Amino acid sequence: MFQSFDSSSDPSLASPRVAALRAWLAENGIDGFLVPRADEHQGEYVPARAARLKWLTGFSGSAGVALVLADSAVIFVDGRYTLQVRKETDPAIFSYDSLVDNPPAKWIGPNLKSGTRLGFDPWLHTTGEIDTLRAAAKKAGVELVPLETNPVDAVWEDQPAAPVTPVEIQPLAFAGELAKDKLVRLAAAIEADGATHAVLTDPSSIAWAFNIRGNDVPHTPLALGFAILAADGSHQLFMDKAKFSREVEAYLTQLAEPHQPVDFEPAIAALAGKGARIALDPVLAAEKLRMVIEANGGTVVAATDPARIPRATKNSAELEGSRAAHRRDGAAVARMLCWLDSQKPGATDEIRAVKALENFRRQAGEETQMPLRDVSFETISGSGPNGAVIHYRVSHATNRKLGDGELFLLDSGAQYQDGTTDITRTVPIGRPTEEMRRRYTLVLKGMIGISILRFPAGTRGADIDAIARMALWAHGLDYAHGTGHGVGSYLAVHEGPQRIAKTGMEKLREGMILSNEPGYYKEGAYGIRLENLIVVEKAVEIEGGDIAMHSFETLTLAPFDRRMIVSDLLSPDERSWLDAYHARVLAEIGPMVDGEALAWLEQACALLG
Amino acid sequence: MFQSFDSSSDPSLASPRVAALRAWLAENGIDGFLVPRADEHQGEYVPARAARLKWLTGFSGSAGVALVLADSAVIFVDGRYTLQVRKETDPAIFSYDSLVDNPPAKWIGPNLKSGTRLGFDPWLHTTGEIDTLRAAAKKAGVELVPLETNPVDAVWEDQPAAPVTPVEIQPLAFAGELAKDKLVRLAAAIEADGATHAVLTDPSSIAWAFNIRGNDVPHTPLALGFAILAADGSHQLFMDKAKFSREVEAYLTQLAEPHQPVDFEPAIAALAGKGARIALDPVLAAEKLRMVIEANGGTVVAATDPARIPRATKNSAELEGSRAAHRRDGAAVARMLCWLDSQKPGATDEIRAVKALENFRRQAGEETQMPLRDVSFETISGSGPNGAVIHYRVSHATNRKLGDGELFLLDSGAQYQDGTTDITRTVPIGRPTEEMRRRYTLVLKGMIGISILRFPAGTRGADIDAIARMALWAHGLDYAHGTGHGVGSYLAVHEGPQRIAKTGMEKLREGMILSNEPGYYKEGAYGIRLENLIVVEKAVEIEGGDIAMHSFETLTLAPFDRRMIVSDLLSPDERSWLDAYHARVLAEIGPMVDGEALAWLEQACALLG
Repeated sequence: MFQSFDSSSDPSLASPRVAALRAWLAENGIDGFLVPRADEHQGEYVPARAARLKWLTGFSGSAGVALVLADSAVIFVDGRYTLQVRKETDPAIFSYDSLVDNPPAKWIGPNLKSGTRLGFDPWLHTTGEIDTLRAAAKKAGVELVPLETNPVDAVWEDQPAAPVTPVEIQPLAFAGELAKDKLVRLAAAIEADGATHAVLTDPSSIAWAFNIRGNDVPHTPLALGFAILAADGSHQLFMDKAKFSREVEAYLTQLAEPHQPVDFEPAIAALAGKGARIALDPVLAAEKLRMVIEANGGTVVAATDPARIPRATKNSAELEGSRAAHRRDGAAVARMLCWLDSQKPGATDEIRAVKALENFRRQAGEETQMPLRDVSFETISGSGPNGAVIHYRVSHATNRKLGDGELFLLDSGAQYQDGTTDITRTVPIGRPTEEMRRRYTLVLKGMIGISILRFPAGTRGADIDAIARMALWAHGLDYAHGTGHGVGSYLAVHEGPQRIAKTGMEKLREGMILSNEPGYYKEGAYGIRLENLIVVEKAVEIEGGDIAMHSFETLTLAPFDRRMIVSDLLSPDERSWLDAYHARVLAEIGPMVDGEALAWLEQACALLG
Repeated sequence: MFQSFDSSSDPSLASPRVAALRAWLAENGIDGFLVPRADEHQGEYVPARAARLKWLTGFSGSAGVALVLADSAVIFVDGRYTLQVRKETDPAIFSYDSLVDNPPAKWIGPNLKSGTRLGFDPWLHTTGEIDTLRAAAKKAGVELVPLETNPVDAVWEDQPAAPVTPVEIQPLAFAGELAKDKLVRLAAAIEADGATHAVLTDPSSIAWAFNIRGNDVPHTPLALGFAILAADGSHQLFMDKAKFSREVEAYLTQLAEPHQPVDFEPAIAALAGKGARIALDPVLAAEKLRMVIEANGGTVVAATDPARIPRATKNSAELEGSRAAHRRDGAAVARMLCWLDSQKPGATDEIRAVKALENFRRQAGEETQMPLRDVSFETISGSGPNGAVIHYRVSHATNRKLGDGELFLLDSGAQYQDGTTDITRTVPIGRPTEEMRRRYTLVLKGMIGISILRFPAGTRGADIDAIARMALWAHGLDYAHGTGHGVGSYLAVHEGPQRIAKTGMEKLREGMILSNEPGYYKEGAYGIRLENLIVVEKAVEIEGGDIAMHSFETLTLAPFDRRMIVSDLLSPDERSWLDAYHARVLAEIGPMVDGEALAWLEQACALLG
């Protein structure tokens, strides 16, 4: 299994750890210390070595920060984790605050005495974060102290080592562009930004630029490292050479000078010393890099990671790969939904469902000679009230039977070498209520609204988010998350900068893959979410049209549950889309399954009538 | 008539004027000077005295800036005025650039030599503008020089005097809240902003706060002046006392200490000298104010004009007034549309239509004892290709007959003491083409989409703009303007901060009046725009709804032309809305008209069938 069902947090461990940290701080003349849930690369997943927040506090969520003082400690989390943080940590040690409404930059003013020396590890905070924090600290008379040693590391005796997993070359058939050509494009972009160099700190950007993948963190095929790209083409890659086979090392040496990670900081200092103008992305790059550059006479150029947009706009090989991955994944999901339908209400549970789905994915991978490499995130398998917890993760402690009259929400994804998938379907166990069916249909209308939308080139994700919500709004309902996130190409399942959300200020460009996942959540009762991946494409020209339009191609292939659809609520256009989609699912997935699953699929994909 | 049809620009006047300006600059050691289309109050309309850009260059548009150097001069305008500026000004003297893509702050870098001394009048630029300009100037090595005397004023021999029109008290029946109560609210807001004082530089805010109106600029009932509001309630008003009757002066003296405008700058200096923390709105307040405050030891607090949101969220008396104004205006528009229908194709023209409409409005005002005070902007009366010019203003030079087979776009508004209106209808002259009808219907679908929308409290204008465009997008069409602007209560017809547009980042709050005006423009052929005013209200509760929702009440009452509607393109919900709207128009306007107009209205408001 690519995921576990253990509740790995033990709140009682925090007491001696926090005491040790406080002793270190006192010895070193520091009044407080920030412990973010971040490593040097600011990714969604961190290696075990960098799970400092979890080790120190017990909190296992994917975002948050602790601020530990001599006689108090507070953990800041967002709305997703308000309940979880209280379960996983010891309230005798920690208090809690909102990472959104009252983050450390707001909190320190009213709570820290002027003169407080607040330490932080400059490798773990971005320059943008530190700019905000520094302004707040200045106002409050607080001194922000960057530390040479991370005090958590200093007191963490059995801290795991940095991961060393083999680097693989992503074949050109899937990458679609030679790494050396990508690097030429990036060098030109660095020049255009008015810089001599750019630091890639995001391992997704390194993976994309060098056409490599790794296994250093869960669920995203990344090889952790840094790269310094140069406008003049003299690139350097900093990655533990123990990760390279001889073949991989020879390949990478042609693209960049390979170095050990320990040489990264001196290399930055050396370039800065020669007066380099070095581009750092304020939302990605560690404050430490800015400190080293400025201390050595270089200039920091604030610029977006040059690989961000090229990586987000998939080329035709990447899209072809994604389509194949989605057919394979669709076959697995069809078998899964057929299997679910064959279970009597109460006969199975959330964990068994996760296991069954992973097995169907393994099977589909083997059948197509494209093995399942990982799940793209921990499956959200929520029955009844668990379905209403937007980021639910099932454990042995929370596992529920799929009971009669309940809804079951299954949000999952796969990593195959040719593409990353992410799909959510919601199915009834037994007989759904009329309310469930109507609300399911409203969510479906929103998802179809995005699927059939045409929009002018230049439209941003923020501009269209409401279109997925209108039908729910009309009934006094909504959902408290964005409509869609960007998705990588055998990379991170949550990839920026593209998104469909109120905060999605990036233009939707051809080749960007996004999720389309409206939902509805009735707390304590049930959750509904319907998710397809879609890709931005040039719209078929319309007679009489004036301007260049974009539309979405749907990548995901799996039926929507007809027992949940109130046909009368659908417009003729929505019904046509759904019938055509189901016909396409049957045409593409039908040949990949047989027996019971094929019979099930034929029935599931029939005209709505 | 409240508007003229003259083309008042004479490009040949610029040559001696620019020469005189250059001579002044040379004598005073200044290399260049910025001439914005702005006065000290940053309003949409400026008094004749402040029309410096037009006097100097001939350009009469409502936005733009000239930059005059010793041997060259450039005028920056936005896309609306690209053609007009070339007609109105002398290309031998001026070159042209884009105010949006290459405004002065971008332009000076590549175009001005390091060391250039660029003058500006600090009364005519906001602090926000100057911050941007100063950053650009610093980069370019250009020195920005605030001038004590405006050099255009120095060489403009017959410059008109500042306007002195009588100030009137806006009756409580229409204002809905005593000025003294408003001022108490504002004082509390200033305190909450951490300031001791706030300067109101926007005459709309002064009009709202003091419940007064004036006639100092065209089309908006403003009395130009400044106010300094104090958190402790010791307010000061700076306005030419010649504008006050004895009664008005007595009224205002109870609310604030009245002063002559000449005392304004010394009053700011005096407060600053006592260490005041004075709030200025960066998008409204003149740089001069910041200079005076900082030179005298005060502190500038950057904060939104405290009257902005209270003014935008109309109270029940203001809304009742607006409803009455819209019934009155609807009667005038019904007579106008009836009259238009009675004209044979080619029998009338754009100017006659403007005059007829103004007369119908005067008549309706007289009949209801609420006389037409002004038009709320210069009527856009565009037939055929003129309808495709989004901000078209008819003059004797451009006037066209309303010809057979053409569309006629009529966008107009009125100022009544109880409310401001703004309405656009598009009607066929003779027989419209199928293309015209289909596109009209797509625009109508967008307008209805906004009209019937429900949305959660907290939704911003930017979030819903696309809903007005979806139907057009589906056919490869769009319009190059926002969907709606805020509207004042017997104040400016374009009022911030609320808007429905990609840039509308303000939440839509109860009581905000907005326009809802999607359009479609076929260059060289025809224009379609359909506009109602709407107001944000609490949505009627829906059974089973989870969250607080808002919806829009439609204020405007006039039928949509049934000859232009392709019923098959409308959904059942859209048809229901339209039939119900027409029934309401007939019920509310029917009793206000008779004879031919009533018969016309009955036919125009019949069920679509």
